[in-house]
Amino acid sequence: MIAIINGPNLNLQGKRQPEIYGNISFEDFLKDLRERFPDEKIEYFQSNCEGEIIDCLHSLGYGDVDCKGIVLNPGAYAHYSYAIADAISSIPVPVIEVHISNIHAREEFRSKSVTARECKGILAGLGLEGYTSAVRYLLERR
Amino acid sequence: MIAIINGPNLNLQGKRQPEIYGNISFEDFLKDLRERFPDEKIEYFQSNCEGEIIDCLHSLGYGDVDCKGIVLNPGAYAHYSYAIADAISSIPVPVIEVHISNIHAREEFRSKSVTARECKGILAGLGLEGYTSAVRYLLERR
Amino acid sequence: MIAIINGPNLNLQGKRQPEIYGNISFEDFLKDLRERFPDEKIEYFQSNCEGEIIDCLHSLGYGDVDCKGIVLNPGAYAHYSYAIADAISSIPVPVIEVHISNIHAREEFRSKSVTARECKGILAGLGLEGYTSAVRYLLERR
Amino acid sequence: MIAIINGPNLNLQGKRQPEIYGNISFEDFLKDLRERFPDEKIEYFQSNCEGEIIDCLHSLGYGDVDCKGIVLNPGAYAHYSYAIADAISSIPVPVIEVHISNIHAREEFRSKSVTARECKGILAGLGLEGYTSAVRYLLERR
Amino acid sequence: MIAIINGPNLNLQGKRQPEIYGNISFEDFLKDLRERFPDEKIEYFQSNCEGEIIDCLHSLGYGDVDCKGIVLNPGAYAHYSYAIADAISSIPVPVIEVHISNIHAREEFRSKSVTARECKGILAGLGLEGYTSAVRYLLERR
Amino acid sequence: MIAIINGPNLNLQGKRQPEIYGNISFEDFLKDLRERFPDEKIEYFQSNCEGEIIDCLHSLGYGDVDCKGIVLNPGAYAHYSYAIADAISSIPVPVIEVHISNIHAREEFRSKSVTARECKGILAGLGLEGYTSAVRYLLERR
Amino acid sequence: MIAIINGPNLNLQGKRQPEIYGNISFEDFLKDLRERFPDEKIEYFQSNCEGEIIDCLHSLGYGDVDCKGIVLNPGAYAHYSYAIADAISSIPVPVIEVHISNIHAREEFRSKSVTARECKGILAGLGLEGYTSAVRYLLERR
Amino acid sequence: MIAIINGPNLNLQGKRQPEIYGNISFEDFLKDLRERFPDEKIEYFQSNCEGEIIDCLHSLGYGDVDCKGIVLNPGAYAHYSYAIADAISSIPVPVIEVHISNIHAREEFRSKSVTARECKGILAGLGLEGYTSAVRYLLERR
Amino acid sequence: MIAIINGPNLNLQGKRQPEIYGNISFEDFLKDLRERFPDEKIEYFQSNCEGEIIDCLHSLGYGDVDCKGIVLNPGAYAHYSYAIADAISSIPVPVIEVHISNIHAREEFRSKSVTARECKGILAGLGLEGYTSAVRYLLERR
Amino acid sequence: MIAIINGPNLNLQGKRQPEIYGNISFEDFLKDLRERFPDEKIEYFQSNCEGEIIDCLHSLGYGDVDCKGIVLNPGAYAHYSYAIADAISSIPVPVIEVHISNIHAREEFRSKSVTARECKGILAGLGLEGYTSAVRYLLERR
Amino acid sequence: MIAIINGPNLNLQGKRQPEIYGNISFEDFLKDLRERFPDEKIEYFQSNCEGEIIDCLHSLGYGDVDCKGIVLNPGAYAHYSYAIADAISSIPVPVIEVHISNIHAREEFRSKSVTARECKGILAGLGLEGYTSAVRYLLERR
Amino acid sequence: MIAIINGPNLNLQGKRQPEIYGNISFEDFLKDLRERFPDEKIEYFQSNCEGEIIDCLHSLGYGDVDCKGIVLNPGAYAHYSYAIADAISSIPVPVIEVHISNIHAREEFRSKSVTARECKGILAGLGLEGYTSAVRYLLERR
Repeated sequence: MIAIINGPNLNLQGKRQPEIYGNISFEDFLKDLRERFPDEKIEYFQSNCEGEIIDCLHSLGYGDVDCKGIVLNPGAYAHYSYAIADAISSIPVPVIEVHISNIHAREEFRSKSVTARECKGILAGLGLEGYTSAVRYLLERR
Repeated sequence: MIAIINGPNLNLQGKRQPEIYGNISFEDFLKDLRERFPDEKIEYFQSNCEGEIIDCLHSLGYGDVDCKGIVLNPGAYAHYSYAIADAISSIPVPVIEVHISNIHAREEFRSKSVTARECKGILAGLGLEGYTSAVRYLLERR
Repeated sequence: MIAIINGPNLNLQGKRQPEIYGNISFEDFLKDLRERFPDEKIEYFQSNCEGEIIDCLHSLGYGDVDCKGIVLNPGAYAHYSYAIADAISSIPVPVIEVHISNIHAREEFRSKSVTARECKGILAGLGLEGYTSAVRYLLERR
Repeated sequence: MIAIINGPNLNLQGKRQPEIYGNISFEDFLKDLRERFPDEKIEYFQSNCEGEIIDCLHSLGYGDVDCKGIVLNPGAYAHYSYAIADAISSIPVPVIEVHISNIHAREEFRSKSVTARECKGILAGLGLEGYTSAVRYLLERR
Repeated sequence: MIAIINGPNLNLQGKRQPEIYGNISFEDFLKDLRERFPDEKIEYFQSNCEGEIIDCLHSLGYGDVDCKGIVLNPGAYAHYSYAIADAISSIPVPVIEVHISNIHAREEFRSKSVTARECKGILAGLGLEGYTSAVRYLLERR
Repeated sequence: MIAIINGPNLNLQGKRQPEIYGNISFEDFLKDLRERFPDEKIEYFQSNCEGEIIDCLHSLGYGDVDCKGIVLNPGAYAHYSYAIADAISSIPVPVIEVHISNIHAREEFRSKSVTARECKGILAGLGLEGYTSAVRYLLERR
Repeated sequence: MIAIINGPNLNLQGKRQPEIYGNISFEDFLKDLRERFPDEKIEYFQSNCEGEIIDCLHSLGYGDVDCKGIVLNPGAYAHYSYAIADAISSIPVPVIEVHISNIHAREEFRSKSVTARECKGILAGLGLEGYTSAVRYLLERR
Repeated sequence: MIAIINGPNLNLQGKRQPEIYGNISFEDFLKDLRERFPDEKIEYFQSNCEGEIIDCLHSLGYGDVDCKGIVLNPGAYAHYSYAIADAISSIPVPVIEVHISNIHAREEFRSKSVTARECKGILAGLGLEGYTSAVRYLLERR
Repeated sequence: MIAIINGPNLNLQGKRQPEIYGNISFEDFLKDLRERFPDEKIEYFQSNCEGEIIDCLHSLGYGDVDCKGIVLNPGAYAHYSYAIADAISSIPVPVIEVHISNIHAREEFRSKSVTARECKGILAGLGLEGYTSAVRYLLERR
Repeated sequence: MIAIINGPNLNLQGKRQPEIYGNISFEDFLKDLRERFPDEKIEYFQSNCEGEIIDCLHSLGYGDVDCKGIVLNPGAYAHYSYAIADAISSIPVPVIEVHISNIHAREEFRSKSVTARECKGILAGLGLEGYTSAVRYLLERR
Repeated sequence: MIAIINGPNLNLQGKRQPEIYGNISFEDFLKDLRERFPDEKIEYFQSNCEGEIIDCLHSLGYGDVDCKGIVLNPGAYAHYSYAIADAISSIPVPVIEVHISNIHAREEFRSKSVTARECKGILAGLGLEGYTSAVRYLLERR
Repeated sequence: MIAIINGPNLNLQGKRQPEIYGNISFEDFLKDLRERFPDEKIEYFQSNCEGEIIDCLHSLGYGDVDCKGIVLNPGAYAHYSYAIADAISSIPVPVIEVHISNIHAREEFRSKSVTARECKGILAGLGLEGYTSAVRYLLERR
C-alpha cells in the first residue's frame, strides 16, 4: 500500500488559484492515478489540521497496515511545522514530499522546507504529475 | 451575513490579561454589536485550532451561505500561520484582520502579520471597537 | 476638535497611482467627512516636510485648542521617521495612524511602522474610509 | 493535583529515536512517577494538536479542578507556537517546561523556545527524570 | 530529443562519496536510461565549467536541434550561479533541476537553489532515479 | 563663540516625558549655563527640520563668525540622518554630540549613532549636565 | 526644458571634501553645461530639505512647464528617503539619478539607493561629467 | 562527591537585585542543601574569573577526587564563553547547567547559552531550588 | 583604443527577454557605435566564462596595446564575482561598468555590485546608450 | 572618594598606538587630575583580567569605603562582557563609562557597548579629558 | 609528487598590488622552492577558470600520478566556490589551502573560506613562504 | 628568543578529545621542538585566563627580553576576545596564530577569529606541526 497525505487548502484543489494550481480536482486526479497503478492500493487522506497529519503519519508508521511509502504534500506547513518534521523522522516508512508548484519560484518564505529535511526526497513544480512520479519512485526503488 | 472568526485564546477574552485586552467578555460585546446592526445577521465562530479556522474560512468561501465579509482575529497565528494566509487567499470573500491591542507597540514578533498580507485591510489597537469598525466597513464599502 | 494630518505625497491623492489609492481627491473626501460629523470641528493639515509634521503635532499637543484626537497618515515617513515617532510620544493627545492601502500586502519595507509603535492604534487597507473609522473611534471611545 | 501535558510525537516515546529519547514508554514511566508521589493526583494529557493543547491549558487554568502546577513538554511546538505561549501567559497556574533531550545540544532551531519565555522555568536534557524534578519542584516550592 | 546536463564533480559519480551518491557510474546509468526510453534520443553533456554549461543551454535553446526539455543537475553551482539562472530564463526550452541527494537534508547552504527559481520544477533525493522521473515527466507532460 | 544646536523635539524639553528627560526647560538651563561661562558667547539654535540643522552647521563652518566648537544634540536624527553626518564631516569646526539620556540603555535603535561617527566625541546619559561638560571640553581642550 | 535638482550638502560643492568631489563649484560647472546645450533651457534647483525636493518634483511633474526630464542628485537622501522615491514614482517625467562619486566604492550604506529604484537609470563616479551624460541621454533618447 | 561551581556576580546572591534572584545568600542555601543530602560530600567553588572556572573544571575532571557530577552556574559567561564550553567538553564528568532565573524570559542575549550545548542538561527559572534538583538528578540518575 | 567586454548571456542580446533588454543585437549596435567614434578603434570581446573575462582584463592591462579604457558589462557576475573584482583592481586601466537595465529596479540581489566597487564608475538603466555614454566619458575625461 | 577603573591594555597608555590614544602615560595624567580635585580622594585600579574588574566593582559597591562614583574604562571588554555589565547593575554606586577614542568612529564592533547599557552615562572621544569630565560630573551632579 | 594549484589573478603575482602580495613573481619563487626540495617533484598549475581548477583536482585525485598532497591557493574563489569545495572533498589526496596575505585582516568577505572547510588545513599571511611551509608539512607529516 | 603562548584548555593537550587534537602532550612535543631548533631559545607559557595572556603579550612586547616573534594559540578566545586582539596590536613583536585543528571545518563559530585580524598570519589544521611551521617561519622570514 502507498499513502498520499494532503495538507491544508489542498481540499480546494481545482477551485483555488487555478493559474497556479490548475483546475483539476484532486479526486479526479486520484481516480486517474489509481488506474495507472492497478496492482497497488493507494490510500488518500486530507486534513487542514497539523495534529491530524501527525496522527496519520504515526498510524501509517506503526499501525498494522503494510505501507511501502508515503507521498506527503504538507502545503504551507512545509515552511514552519517542525512538529510534522519530527513525526516524519519518527517513523520507519519513507516519505516523499511533493509540491504542485515550484516553491523556489514564488515568495521567499516558500523556498525553505523544514519538513523536506526529514524526507527521503522532494519534488516540486511538476503539477499533479509530481504525485505520479513520487508513487512510481516508491514502487520501483530498490 | 457577516462572519466573525476568533482564533486562539480569544475564548478567554475578559478574563485574560485585562490590562491589555479589557474585561468585557466577547459574548457580552457580541450581543451589543448585534443590536447595533439589527438588519444584518452576524455569525460567530471561535477555535484554538489552526485547522478548524481554515475549515471555517473554506466553508464561508465556498459554502451556500451568502457571506458579505469576514472579520478575522487570528490571535498569535497571525505571526506564523502561512496555512491560514493561504486559506484567506483561496476564498472569494473579503477578510478584514482585527487585533484588540496595538501589535506594533508590543513584542517585536507581534509587529509582523503573515495573514494580513492576504487580507483587504487590518485594524489594531482599537480594543473591541475594532470589530465594530470592521463590520461597518464591510457593510458600507462599495 | 479632531485633527487630520496627511504626510508626503498625499496632496496628490486622486491623481497619483489611482489603482492603489483610488481617484477621489482628499479635499472632496474631506467635505463628505465633515458632513457626516456635523457636530465636531475637523481640522486638516498636509505637508511633505518631516519637520512641519512635527511642528504640527507639537502645536496640537501643547497649543490652546482642545484637540480630542489626531488621525495621522505619515505616508512613507511611517517606515523610518523616528523623529515623528518621538513627537507622537511627546504629546498628550491620542493619535490613530491610518494608511489608505494595506501596508502588509505591498513591498517588504512598508510592513514595518516605527510611528505606529507610539500611536494608540492603526488602520490600513480600508481606503479613504479608514479616516472615517478613525474619526468615529476617537469620538465614540470611552 | 498536578497536570502533565505532552505535545506532538511524545505518544511515540519509547519507540521513536531511542538513541535520543530512550526506550521507556511514557505510560510505564508515568506509573512509576505516580508511585513516587502517592499523595498527589497526577493527571496526564497528550495531543499532537496545537489547538487541543491550548484548550487543555485553558481548562486547567479556569476549570474547577484545583491544579497546583503544570508540567508541559510542548515538543517541537516550543520553537514556534506563539499561540501556546499566549495560552500559558493567560492562565494563573505555574507552568514548567520540560524537554527530554538537551535542546541546546541539537539543531540550531531547537535552542530557541518561544513558550519557555512565558513559563516559570525550564528543564532540558535530564531524560524522563526531568518530569520528576519538575513535579517535585511544583510540590515543594514555596 | 531530451538533453541531460551535469555540472561540476558529477564526472566522478560512482567514485566520489558513495555513501551519499551511490556507486553506479553515470555512464552505466545512462545506458540503462536510454534502454528504458528507446523511442527518444537522450543527449548527454558534462562540464565542470560554469561558462560551458551556459554555452550548452544557449545552443539547446537556440540551436537547430528540436529539444523537448533539459534535465539539469547544476551541482554546487545551484547555490550561487545567477549566471546559469539567467541562462535558463533566457531560453524557450523547459528545464527540470535534479539533485541526486536531498539538498534540504545536508549543509544549510545546499537548501537554497538560485537556479531552481528559473526552472519548471525540481527533484532532489531520489538518487539517480531522479533523472528517470525528470525525463519521463518531460516526455509525458501536456 | 560656542554654538549649541538642538534637534527635533528638544523644544519640548521640560514638558515631554519628564521621567526620562527631567523637567527643566532648555531656556532655563541655558541661562544658567551662560552664567557659568561668562567669558564666552554661547549661541543657541533649535529646529525640528533636518535641512535647517544642515544649513546651521554649514553657516557655522563657513560663515564669518569665529566658532570654536559645536555641541550638537541631533535627537532621533542621530540614528539615521546620513545627511547631517555628511554636513558634520564637511565643516572644519569640531562637533561634540550630546544626548540627555543614555542611548545605550533604551530601545535597540537608539544605541547606534550615524552622526557620532563624524563627531570628535559623544556624551550620553549625563542629563543636561552633558551640555556643560561638552562646552567645557571645547573651551579647555588643547 | 531639462531640470537639475541637487540635494543636501551639494550647495557646498567645490568647498567640501575636494579629494572626493573635486573643487569646481556647481555654479561654474552649470554655466559651462548650459553653453554646451545652447538650444535647451536648463533649470537648476538645490535644497537641503527633503520636503522641498518633493515639492519641486511635484511641480515639475504636474506644473505647466514642459519638462523633458529631470537629473536628480539626491545626496545622502538616496539611501533612505522612501518619501522622495514615492514622489519620483508619482510623476510622469523621466528621472535620471546622478552621483558625483562612485557610491559602490565608499561606505557600505552608500551602495544602496532606494530612490534609484524608481528612476529610469543611474550614473555614478563620473564626477561632474555625470550630469552632462545624463542631460545628453535625456535629450537624445527616443 | 558532587561539586557546585558558581560564576561571576553569584557571590552577591541575596544582596543583588533581590526581585530577580531572591534574598537568601548562597552560603545559607548551601548549608540547607548539605543537610538534605547528608550522605554525599558537596564541594563549593565561586569565582568571577573565567580562567579560574576553567582551572576548576579541569581539576575536577582529571584530579584525584572522585567527582560524580558538577552543577555549574556560569552566570553571564554562559552567553559567550566558548572557552568554558571547551573545558566542559574536555572532561569526563557530567555537568548540569543551572540558572536561578528563567533565561528565556529576560533580555534576548540571555536566551542563548553556548555552555549548555556541552552540558548534559540545563535547568533555569527554579530559583535556588534548581541546584537541589540538579544535585538530586546527578545522584539518582542511572 | 577602447575595449568593450560583455559577460554572460549578452551574446543573446536582442533575442533574450526583449521587454527588459530591447531587441537590437549587440553586433548591430556596435557597428553604429563605431561609426559615431570614427577616430578611435573600439575592440569587442564577449564570454560567458568568468576566467576568460579575467584573462581579457589582464591582457588589456598588461599587454602591449595602448588601451585608454574598458567598458565592462559583467552581467550577473557583477553580483558575486570577487575574482573579477580583484582582476579590475589589479590593472592600471580605468574600467566603467555598464548595465543595460536599471539594476536597482529589479530583484534585490541585482542592486549590489561587487565589481563596481573596483571600477571608476557605473551606468545602469540607459539601455544600449549606456555603452555610448561610457565610451564618450572615457575619451573626453581629463 | 571617587574610583577610576581601567581595563585591558590601558596599562600601556602612552606607549601603545599613540596616533589613537596620545602619548601621555596614565600615571602622569592621574597626578594632574588629583591636583585639579584636591578635596577629593581619587583611587585608581587597573587590570587586564575580567574577573578582577568584577571583584573591584563589588568591593567598591559593598565594601566599607564611601564611594561616590566610579569612572570605568572597560577597554575592549565593553563590547562583549555581559559579566561586567551584570556587576555594574549589581552595585548601588553610579558608574560612568569612558573611552579615550570615539568608539563610533572606528571598527563596527567598537560602536556597541554592552556595559554602557548598565551605566549612568558614557563619554567617548574626549581623550584623557573624558576622565576629568566624568569625575567632575560625579562630584557636581545632584 | 606534490602539486601546487594557483587560482585567479595569481598569474599576476609580483606585478599586482605589491604592497599586499610582494614583488617576486611566482615563477621565480617556484624555481627557488624546487631547489629547496630537490628530492621531490613539484608540479605547478595556474588557471583563472573555476572549472579548470576542478578538472585539475580530479586528475590529481584519480589520475595515474602518485600525488602525495596538493597546495591550493584558490584566490577569491575561496570565498564562494562551493563547486571547488565539493571537488576537494571528492578526492582522496590531502589538500592544504594557502593565502599569501592574512585573509582575516582584510575586507570582511575574505575572512570566510568555503573551500578551507574541506581541506586538511589552512595557512594565511606568511607571504610566499606559506607555500614552503605547506609543502614541507605534506612531505614530513606522518 | 621565540615565545609560544597557549590559551585555555591546551594544558589538557594529549588527554582531551584525542580524536580531534591527537594524544601527544604539549610538554613532549615541546622537548622535540626545542631539539629541532637547538640554536634558539624557545620560551613556553600557558594560561586559561584571558588577562594573564594579555599580561604575557605585554611583557614580551615591552619587557627587556629580545623576542623575535610569538606563536599564539588563543584556543576559544580567538573567537571573541577583542581584548587579546587589542593586546596583539599594541606590541611591536610579530605574532603568528596557530590552531591544532582546522577551525573552518568545525562548528560555525570557530571559523571566525577576531585575534587573527591583528596577527601577521594564521595556521590551522596542521596538528602540532603547526607550531613547528610557525617557529620556522618566524626564524627564517626576512
